[in-house]
Amino acid sequence: MAEAKNRSGKNSAQVGVLGASGYTGAELVRLLLRHPKVEIKALTADRKAGQTMNAVFPQFAQFDLPKLTTIEEMDAGALDLVFCGLPHGTTQVVIKDLLEKQPDLKIVDLSADFRLSDPLVYEKWYGHAHQAVELQKEAVYGLVEIYRDEIRKARLVANPGCFTTTSILAMVPLLEAGAINPDEIVIDSKTGMTGAGRAAKEQMLFSEVTEGIHAYGVAHHRHMGELDQEFSLAAKRAVTASFTPHLSPMNRGIYATHYVRAEGSTTPEQMHGILADFFKTEPFVTVLPFGTVPQSRHTRGSNFVQIGVIADRVAGKAIVISTLDNLVKGASGQAVQNMNLMLGHGEATGLEQIALFP
Amino acid sequence: MAEAKNRSGKNSAQVGVLGASGYTGAELVRLLLRHPKVEIKALTADRKAGQTMNAVFPQFAQFDLPKLTTIEEMDAGALDLVFCGLPHGTTQVVIKDLLEKQPDLKIVDLSADFRLSDPLVYEKWYGHAHQAVELQKEAVYGLVEIYRDEIRKARLVANPGCFTTTSILAMVPLLEAGAINPDEIVIDSKTGMTGAGRAAKEQMLFSEVTEGIHAYGVAHHRHMGELDQEFSLAAKRAVTASFTPHLSPMNRGIYATHYVRAEGSTTPEQMHGILADFFKTEPFVTVLPFGTVPQSRHTRGSNFVQIGVIADRVAGKAIVISTLDNLVKGASGQAVQNMNLMLGHGEATGLEQIALFP
Amino acid sequence: MAEAKNRSGKNSAQVGVLGASGYTGAELVRLLLRHPKVEIKALTADRKAGQTMNAVFPQFAQFDLPKLTTIEEMDAGALDLVFCGLPHGTTQVVIKDLLEKQPDLKIVDLSADFRLSDPLVYEKWYGHAHQAVELQKEAVYGLVEIYRDEIRKARLVANPGCFTTTSILAMVPLLEAGAINPDEIVIDSKTGMTGAGRAAKEQMLFSEVTEGIHAYGVAHHRHMGELDQEFSLAAKRAVTASFTPHLSPMNRGIYATHYVRAEGSTTPEQMHGILADFFKTEPFVTVLPFGTVPQSRHTRGSNFVQIGVIADRVAGKAIVISTLDNLVKGASGQAVQNMNLMLGHGEATGLEQIALFP
Amino acid sequence: MAEAKNRSGKNSAQVGVLGASGYTGAELVRLLLRHPKVEIKALTADRKAGQTMNAVFPQFAQFDLPKLTTIEEMDAGALDLVFCGLPHGTTQVVIKDLLEKQPDLKIVDLSADFRLSDPLVYEKWYGHAHQAVELQKEAVYGLVEIYRDEIRKARLVANPGCFTTTSILAMVPLLEAGAINPDEIVIDSKTGMTGAGRAAKEQMLFSEVTEGIHAYGVAHHRHMGELDQEFSLAAKRAVTASFTPHLSPMNRGIYATHYVRAEGSTTPEQMHGILADFFKTEPFVTVLPFGTVPQSRHTRGSNFVQIGVIADRVAGKAIVISTLDNLVKGASGQAVQNMNLMLGHGEATGLEQIALFP
Repeated sequence: MAEAKNRSGKNSAQVGVLGASGYTGAELVRLLLRHPKVEIKALTADRKAGQTMNAVFPQFAQFDLPKLTTIEEMDAGALDLVFCGLPHGTTQVVIKDLLEKQPDLKIVDLSADFRLSDPLVYEKWYGHAHQAVELQKEAVYGLVEIYRDEIRKARLVANPGCFTTTSILAMVPLLEAGAINPDEIVIDSKTGMTGAGRAAKEQMLFSEVTEGIHAYGVAHHRHMGELDQEFSLAAKRAVTASFTPHLSPMNRGIYATHYVRAEGSTTPEQMHGILADFFKTEPFVTVLPFGTVPQSRHTRGSNFVQIGVIADRVAGKAIVISTLDNLVKGASGQAVQNMNLMLGHGEATGLEQIALFP
Repeated sequence: MAEAKNRSGKNSAQVGVLGASGYTGAELVRLLLRHPKVEIKALTADRKAGQTMNAVFPQFAQFDLPKLTTIEEMDAGALDLVFCGLPHGTTQVVIKDLLEKQPDLKIVDLSADFRLSDPLVYEKWYGHAHQAVELQKEAVYGLVEIYRDEIRKARLVANPGCFTTTSILAMVPLLEAGAINPDEIVIDSKTGMTGAGRAAKEQMLFSEVTEGIHAYGVAHHRHMGELDQEFSLAAKRAVTASFTPHLSPMNRGIYATHYVRAEGSTTPEQMHGILADFFKTEPFVTVLPFGTVPQSRHTRGSNFVQIGVIADRVAGKAIVISTLDNLVKGASGQAVQNMNLMLGHGEATGLEQIALFP
Repeated sequence: MAEAKNRSGKNSAQVGVLGASGYTGAELVRLLLRHPKVEIKALTADRKAGQTMNAVFPQFAQFDLPKLTTIEEMDAGALDLVFCGLPHGTTQVVIKDLLEKQPDLKIVDLSADFRLSDPLVYEKWYGHAHQAVELQKEAVYGLVEIYRDEIRKARLVANPGCFTTTSILAMVPLLEAGAINPDEIVIDSKTGMTGAGRAAKEQMLFSEVTEGIHAYGVAHHRHMGELDQEFSLAAKRAVTASFTPHLSPMNRGIYATHYVRAEGSTTPEQMHGILADFFKTEPFVTVLPFGTVPQSRHTRGSNFVQIGVIADRVAGKAIVISTLDNLVKGASGQAVQNMNLMLGHGEATGLEQIALFP
Repeated sequence: MAEAKNRSGKNSAQVGVLGASGYTGAELVRLLLRHPKVEIKALTADRKAGQTMNAVFPQFAQFDLPKLTTIEEMDAGALDLVFCGLPHGTTQVVIKDLLEKQPDLKIVDLSADFRLSDPLVYEKWYGHAHQAVELQKEAVYGLVEIYRDEIRKARLVANPGCFTTTSILAMVPLLEAGAINPDEIVIDSKTGMTGAGRAAKEQMLFSEVTEGIHAYGVAHHRHMGELDQEFSLAAKRAVTASFTPHLSPMNRGIYATHYVRAEGSTTPEQMHGILADFFKTEPFVTVLPFGTVPQSRHTRGSNFVQIGVIADRVAGKAIVISTLDNLVKGASGQAVQNMNLMLGHGEATGLEQIALFP
């Protein structure tokens, strides 16, 4: 197979990870260390600059990895692609600056900064004007199963959020097909704790999270902007779903239960058929046999998504459940999948790991 | 305060627990051992008959408790009240037999056998004709906050299920008030593992349950019959809600997220007002300030219920969340609350424990 | 029963809790709210002063509690007894100041500040001179089962640490009896997360703690000073045990496995006899039948301790296991037990709760 | 690299997994599916014969795998190597029969049946005479880091237990070097729940395991026979260590804390040096810098082992901690490592996965 040409001139793609001391950073390193066509050349972490990655994440004790540096210390000129796992807001400034200096650098951004294409919508959800509006227009929404072709040609890809990846995969094929009523979608989503990152906050302590469950961000979670955007595009009209995220006492996993009402006489079996057909050639999305209920643990640590469709006992309604690992297909795995497309590698390269269960 | 007269002639009510080797049995013993007006006289557990309660539940190592016996060995004539924590189906036969021999014995039944008042509905959900139809008619549905007066006079009380207690408390006041559309109720409920009991089944093993979440019994969970019955009574017409239970990796807690659409121009704030008003004198139900999201862990080990109402971002919709400990208010605590009413004790006697958090 | 006279002149003891926003603070409130002879009059929490206790711990939503204040705002003159749950170092200054102003105030201190009676030993473990040496001499070590008589007369009681309570109860009777070799004690202890408090630190996040176990503070954990002091007093010579604490992914529980070598021809059965005899009238310590292995979960939420003795297969050695709930008998429950003695109440008053299992 | 010749004549080794419906079976499948030189040809599971592997382990929903069959239905003649994950006792009969029919078949046995080389010792621990004494003599103990050369030439390899792998790696180099006193080894080991397998037993239910910790098999755990055998071989005299396994509420991980006394004037630093030297070229064993405490979670899902050495505060003593994933290096990963050696593949092939943390 002909190797993709890298701007670095090296056989392996030279990549950097900005924000490597967080969980998505560690997950990128875990995947990239075993990727046959990639070399990790730079790891940044502002507050932990100067430390080794092994000190910050001892699971890498056996590996030689670049030291953590500041972004300024990173030699972006030597890189082919950068993963950006920085906080929202900061990100748009950093990326704008990077691309001004290195216009042919490729970037997969894991923050929310470039996911919303409309500057006004961005401003509504984030409370300030976007600082890099031109890039916002340029950025491609990195949900591979929907935007594969655009991603191949993109310079800047906005890696989707974990909740949104889970629900877009389940709902967009049905909305596009006109199979469900766009005004009656209820999404009850459950996530593990790693989705909240590694910041030391009281509400994220073990004892605040274990042995209980609760909703959060009810009616104002920022991922809703992404859902609205993609659902509306699919339905070709404005869609606003009910969406409530819950925190379940587990590390990994998004588990989204979608309550939908059929449009016209569409049956739950037909909904299942639409989804099965949509994903039939996808390497990472499995639509389970009709009536089968997935479990989040069966995707743990893998880039796989499992989707189930069950007829509700309420006539005309169905329950569509989708689940994935928020750190893999919901973040770093999808970022590697995007990188593979952007660099011309096989889409599944480095993402072959099977779910770790139990 | 004048002591309630017990048929046993003793100052303390003499009680028995059928099915004491399960989790609801242990929880009854935990509560009854500290109840100032009760004496535990009999504990039965067919498969573990002959063992001490301490061998089966070492948390009771410090206490003198009757040995586990078979039901046949139990001297029902010496008892004032019996808690029945047997499997459904068996229960109706055992209770029928007990009441034939001891017609003035009082019974709180924790199984599902007497919760549905209509024999046909029972048959539909359980697949066989009810074996004690006369008692089914007599039994009072033991949801104290709704049927307090009937319970005081009852001989046989059907203690409600944990999911149904959680959702009836949240929905019935709104349905009675005509505040929500009965045709658009979606209930996404999450439970801890103790709700499934102590039977040794593969799907209940630690490694099958931890680090993940999943729905189960989708579209055919038997608790739905109870929901339909009580919702329909409240709405004065047939109501069929969407209801999906999920298993969250925790011991205790039911956490029910209700998605409701307002009837007419009722606002979420008004829904909150209806609930706050309904429960304002209740000792065990707290309606949190409008917009506050409860957490299941804050009811752990207590008989308390917490309810929150939040406006959805979708116009005309609200999210009502209720939570409780499935073994206490969802089972054994509510059973003691029922017993207190039936025996003329203060309703909260023996139920004063505050939630164990963290 | 004649009521103990309180200096406040009130029938109920008027108590305050300093540091009420931490887990031991919440646990004190949980217990004190149901204590029939106590009234909570003051709650302090410097960083959260001005908030309600319900905002900080929503499990108290149903109760009227004093607002959180600063220590300065507290009216110490109106109080009979104060529980002090402040960080070490700060504590000695605060208590010195309090007792200067209110010399007949009683204090149960939950910090480590007054546990070591020797100022030099204190300095060795804590790296600075003690700021209240006179009080250090006066303070009584509040391990009720060992120092009950002294505690009854004390003004200032130093509530022991959770690890030390667990191991002193298991080892001191054996050391006093000369039954084990003081030079060959190995203590491998496991704790739940609540022992680390509620401070927001990275290493206490859910994802850093769940699904794994690790040792910490190996060979230099500060609780060792207490162990040395009490073991040496019991053995009447200097004793230095090996002690390694581990963090197990659970909220509550200390589980200490002690590996001991018999002195002379003492058998494991005789060791069991010594312990059983020592604790035979104790309300909160249960020595299980010889050969029985306890589990931490069977003490959860209660003030009970369970101790088991098993013969090792290595000749001349035994394994002694003790377990308790670190927030109850290991902290707040023991503090209430101390208070009961200091105020002349029945020792077990307010501590009747049975372990919450499952 | 020249391909190892397989008896099947195929380029990929044709392998079978006996007992594929258990956790070690699933873990073998997870690893073997991604092994570049192996093809899974047979999966057996007596009680679940006839089911698909996907029904039993839905994480394999995306893969084509052989159906589960009985052992009798398996075509052993077409296989190069068989992994045997059957219960002890049964195993020796099955393997004896297999090798009689297929004398050049290679076998990695994950049970305890062939780990003890002395038939009398086997009988002592297992209570019955060994049924395949000749094979017991032939079998090689499959701890790669100790017996690599013998394994390369073996037909039958006895894959070590998880507890023993963890402790042999930590202790054998020190015993061989005469650095520690063989009579004063105390091993306090902690394991996750998957080590107990997938059998439906009450004591393995989620609610019996979560939120607590306890010892089990105290003083009579069967893994002790293996420890004695390997420790004694290393020390060249009989060694009997104190060993207590504990069950920690987590899926995966063995965490063994070893308390050792130096022989002569050996320092803890020297012990560290001995271990670091012993493992310096090993691909899967990392000795952390002196004084560093490992965590089990940093090996989760990987074949890696982490070892730390810390000086005890008791003079002349040290604490050696080793940790690994019981299902990988403690079972199926080590089995694949053994297979690689037996078939002439690179030892680490298919075992490259990095620990999944968080």
